[in-house]
Amino acid sequence: MRKVYLSNTPRLEALELFLGKAPIARQTETIKVVDALGRVTADPVFAGLSMPGYHAAAMDGIAVKAENTFSASDQNPLQLSEKDSFVSVNTGNPLPPGFDAVIKVEEIQELSDGKVEIITPATPWQHVRPVGEDVVAGEIIVPTRHKLRPPDLGALLAGGITDIEVLKKPLAIIIPSGSEVVSPGAERSRGSIPDFNSTVIASYLQEWGAEPFIAPIVPDEPDKIRQAVSEASNKGDLIIINAGSSAGEKDYTFPVIEALGEVFLHGVATRPGKPTILGKVGNKPVVGLPGYPVSAYMSLEWFVQPLIYKYLGLPYPQRPKLDVSLGRRVVSEVGVEEYVRMTVGYVGDRYIANPLTRGAGVTMSLVRADGLLVIPANSLGYEQGETVELELYRPEYELKHNLLAAGSHDLIIDLLATALKERNPLMNLSSAHLGSMGGIAAIGRGQAHLAGVHLFDPDTNTYNLPYINKMLPDQKLHLINLAYRMQGWIVPAGNPDKVESVNTVVDKNLSFINRQRGAGTRLLFDHMLNKAGIKPEQVYGYEREEHSHLNVAASVAAGAARVGLGILPAAKAFNLDFVPVVEERYDLLMSDVFFISKDSKILLEIINDPEFKKQVEAMGGYSMRDAGTKEL
Amino acid sequence: MRKVYLSNTPRLEALELFLGKAPIARQTETIKVVDALGRVTADPVFAGLSMPGYHAAAMDGIAVKAENTFSASDQNPLQLSEKDSFVSVNTGNPLPPGFDAVIKVEEIQELSDGKVEIITPATPWQHVRPVGEDVVAGEIIVPTRHKLRPPDLGALLAGGITDIEVLKKPLAIIIPSGSEVVSPGAERSRGSIPDFNSTVIASYLQEWGAEPFIAPIVPDEPDKIRQAVSEASNKGDLIIINAGSSAGEKDYTFPVIEALGEVFLHGVATRPGKPTILGKVGNKPVVGLPGYPVSAYMSLEWFVQPLIYKYLGLPYPQRPKLDVSLGRRVVSEVGVEEYVRMTVGYVGDRYIANPLTRGAGVTMSLVRADGLLVIPANSLGYEQGETVELELYRPEYELKHNLLAAGSHDLIIDLLATALKERNPLMNLSSAHLGSMGGIAAIGRGQAHLAGVHLFDPDTNTYNLPYINKMLPDQKLHLINLAYRMQGWIVPAGNPDKVESVNTVVDKNLSFINRQRGAGTRLLFDHMLNKAGIKPEQVYGYEREEHSHLNVAASVAAGAARVGLGILPAAKAFNLDFVPVVEERYDLLMSDVFFISKDSKILLEIINDPEFKKQVEAMGGYSMRDAGTKEL
Repeated sequence: MRKVYLSNTPRLEALELFLGKAPIARQTETIKVVDALGRVTADPVFAGLSMPGYHAAAMDGIAVKAENTFSASDQNPLQLSEKDSFVSVNTGNPLPPGFDAVIKVEEIQELSDGKVEIITPATPWQHVRPVGEDVVAGEIIVPTRHKLRPPDLGALLAGGITDIEVLKKPLAIIIPSGSEVVSPGAERSRGSIPDFNSTVIASYLQEWGAEPFIAPIVPDEPDKIRQAVSEASNKGDLIIINAGSSAGEKDYTFPVIEALGEVFLHGVATRPGKPTILGKVGNKPVVGLPGYPVSAYMSLEWFVQPLIYKYLGLPYPQRPKLDVSLGRRVVSEVGVEEYVRMTVGYVGDRYIANPLTRGAGVTMSLVRADGLLVIPANSLGYEQGETVELELYRPEYELKHNLLAAGSHDLIIDLLATALKERNPLMNLSSAHLGSMGGIAAIGRGQAHLAGVHLFDPDTNTYNLPYINKMLPDQKLHLINLAYRMQGWIVPAGNPDKVESVNTVVDKNLSFINRQRGAGTRLLFDHMLNKAGIKPEQVYGYEREEHSHLNVAASVAAGAARVGLGILPAAKAFNLDFVPVVEERYDLLMSDVFFISKDSKILLEIINDPEFKKQVEAMGGYSMRDAGTKEL
Repeated sequence: MRKVYLSNTPRLEALELFLGKAPIARQTETIKVVDALGRVTADPVFAGLSMPGYHAAAMDGIAVKAENTFSASDQNPLQLSEKDSFVSVNTGNPLPPGFDAVIKVEEIQELSDGKVEIITPATPWQHVRPVGEDVVAGEIIVPTRHKLRPPDLGALLAGGITDIEVLKKPLAIIIPSGSEVVSPGAERSRGSIPDFNSTVIASYLQEWGAEPFIAPIVPDEPDKIRQAVSEASNKGDLIIINAGSSAGEKDYTFPVIEALGEVFLHGVATRPGKPTILGKVGNKPVVGLPGYPVSAYMSLEWFVQPLIYKYLGLPYPQRPKLDVSLGRRVVSEVGVEEYVRMTVGYVGDRYIANPLTRGAGVTMSLVRADGLLVIPANSLGYEQGETVELELYRPEYELKHNLLAAGSHDLIIDLLATALKERNPLMNLSSAHLGSMGGIAAIGRGQAHLAGVHLFDPDTNTYNLPYINKMLPDQKLHLINLAYRMQGWIVPAGNPDKVESVNTVVDKNLSFINRQRGAGTRLLFDHMLNKAGIKPEQVYGYEREEHSHLNVAASVAAGAARVGLGILPAAKAFNLDFVPVVEERYDLLMSDVFFISKDSKILLEIINDPEFKKQVEAMGGYSMRDAGTKEL
């Protein structure tokens, strides 16, 4: 039987154990100051020379002996002759010996005979930059464990320091493991997994100040993993193994570390990230990271970033915090510290945050996230509308211009986001795929700026307005047409099942892939079933839900379903066939607060731009004939 | 006559003009995703492949057909046989064709004959990771003008993108100019200025996303500067000339840009930074930066950083802001926007900020600064105790542990700072060189954590306590001895004037360099004069003030003074002679709030550490015999 139990150690307890038992051994190296940006000092650095190295003119003008000018006044202008009683100087020139003051060029009158006239006496040392004003020899320029910034390099060079002892970047060896794992650029076959984790891990390590090295991919064979880890422990300062950190049949990270060194801990009380291994081999810290990307990156941040910062002696970086109102309920399990990726937008006068998918395999949730909600182990989560504190991935001033699009998603929304960013780099459009009904509800709660809706009402044979009037009868709202788009059957290339209608799907018992509750496309399908007198339970796969047109098409392309309902560009993305069913109206619903804002003006400008319309129609399956028309 | 007038254009007006008239022309290049960290996308990027590319097991266990398991229950365990009705799978394995659910390894009972037994039915698609769960082909992975972070690279690779079109880094050519300018590592002669500015400018440009190139140093010859700028305008995307941007006799930047292209503006209403030139040569933006380092770097940040960010289409970064209480009055002139570098510490329960020197030539003011106070053009400045908003160079959480040492400075304070940082990377010790009297006053106002004091009281023949009792009679304070140190005459090597006492200084009319008012060393000198019956006006140079022992020594070393009073390590730093005068007591004064804090415990631990004492005494001129003794 496989070993199936991992420990449930609290994260901070695990970290303390790890930092205490296996710190990275400190090493230094001497490098050129001109190459030292971002490096960390090994010791305090003291200036070897003074800057300036002499008393210098601080202005363009003439150098004088102050005491020789004391008689000058408005009534009694004083004439001075060159060499003898003054010397012309430019800013930065050394003060000639015997001179102790500078008179600015604006305050002298040049006479024709090479003499100058002044009417104000100079005070001793006026407009003179004393030796060592910038940096004085012997003074401390930068302290120990200081990360060098551009002006630090300037002060070091000014102080005569051209070489500097810094902490060596720790060499972190990343060992990708897994028999199914292939290089990210390699041809993919069924069952192969591209190794993108190593690139992400290496990039993080680089940002944190380590020197990453990605070792060759090792198959799931204990001997080979053992050999790779053993070699890495001789060469590197830190070893990261990804993946095989769980307790499955082919998870060899644990036994390998145990055989070569010591495992401090296997299993952390977090979600994601639980199957993490912390240990050492020959006094080199070793981390076994989970294979799921989000788990791997979170675990890396929890355990490897502090390890590196401790080595560098730098304060551990903290993300900015922000209080937000929850747009949706977020539940959690007691006993596990949970990390939920969130999108954030500023709606009306408060920040609204919505959870992204929690799947540990969904890298895109990290790409889309604006912040992170950390739910403590003793909490069951938070209610919709509750105020919680987020750790931010992006600064607050960027989130202020984050437009939140709830509701149904369409590829045009992505094009809008691009056009917005091109007009104003601060503007960003985040989409929460809530479906049309969810979008109307989010607008109603003041939790989104706009929502894509395409809800057909069979009673009135119109779109959207009947639903909006029913759901939000008392709110002042605005509805703008974005496009008409073609919905149709997404089927394998060549339409082998000859899908024509909902009857074909039922008659041939085709495996169907549905959309989530509240999605306009699902309502359309329900309406079609209803019209044909078919009950949902007669459709094979009715309960299987995907959250986007593209995911429906992906399921059909992968053979996991024979048919789905969706839009043309989704079918095209997978070279599938598309059987048109109906042209539907896709509108944008906006709250009044947003509609009267400057941001919405920019949005509408784009929608009305003929270039933009052309671009959308070029995708196929869209008509922009009414784009920008106000329907409410 | 030289041209002496520059324009006084407000900074933001100048910026708008510059960005409008000479943006950097956008160019793109295709690079490997694995090398793309920190680069900026030229277009939105859509996934080419789905990840996973197939339905995959989300758990270790067995793949089954869900409908074949519906009969399983506690009462009726169901036995399944391999191949036929189940297949063993590990996390990530593709789901075999025909199977639609996974049962976790923990929920199966392996039987001896290779069969397994289950007691819970599987629901269709349970523990199955659908195709495209991470990234689905056709979806947008990153928007346009997006700076790529580690997880973005992962999502791109997962989505089958291995090459990506990014914005080319603009090539910024830095032209150092000045006949007196030499390479930073070159031997320095009187009048030569090391070119450290180019390294600082290049480092900033690198941080902002440009590709810097430092051209050879050009002497102050119009033809040579013209040739360098002309060549740079053919090769580079952006040209930076440093210095020669003012209107002096040898300032050729203005006429050269005017001859080759167009000057938009000469002179900005800021301090520092006024003599800035903005223009273009052949449609390439050109900036003429002032020669003084602080002016150059500020001007670079005001005009070149926005130019690069505009090119990259990224939101312009904003520094965090913080409200602070002013420890000292900060005056300003109307009509000029002034930028004052400040130190910040958290004293008691508020942030206290003190201005650093405003000299445009003092690179160290940028090295030491925790934040920046921007005084608008219409303001005369702020009073002591007033609350003002700073732009922070370091995050607030670091400033919370910034200890502010006011009062007299001693090199031991620098050693303490180093030892503190080694014990806790968050701890930092900033010094404001206020002199002993200034230090006591700062403690009294709650504007510092500790102050170095060494004030001799001739009436009682003791140190410090009489002054503290007189100045702050009602406060609960603590006084800890740090060291005894030798004060003496700092004189040229060999003591050519045979300085023995204050009488030698006066009798030989030696050029003296004094310390600032309120400094303990100045009081000591005054006391010596008084005892000898000498009046200050009898001392040649009594009015010349420096703010540190090292600066006094630097003046003597440079020949600008023949004698000063100071401590042994300062004389040693310049290979000067030292004639001991008196051993004085150097104590640390602490407020009660600080004394009872955790931070002070760490400080006292260090002072009492025998290793630390040894280190101090090794510098020479110190005795640590009473270090750590509480005197109040």
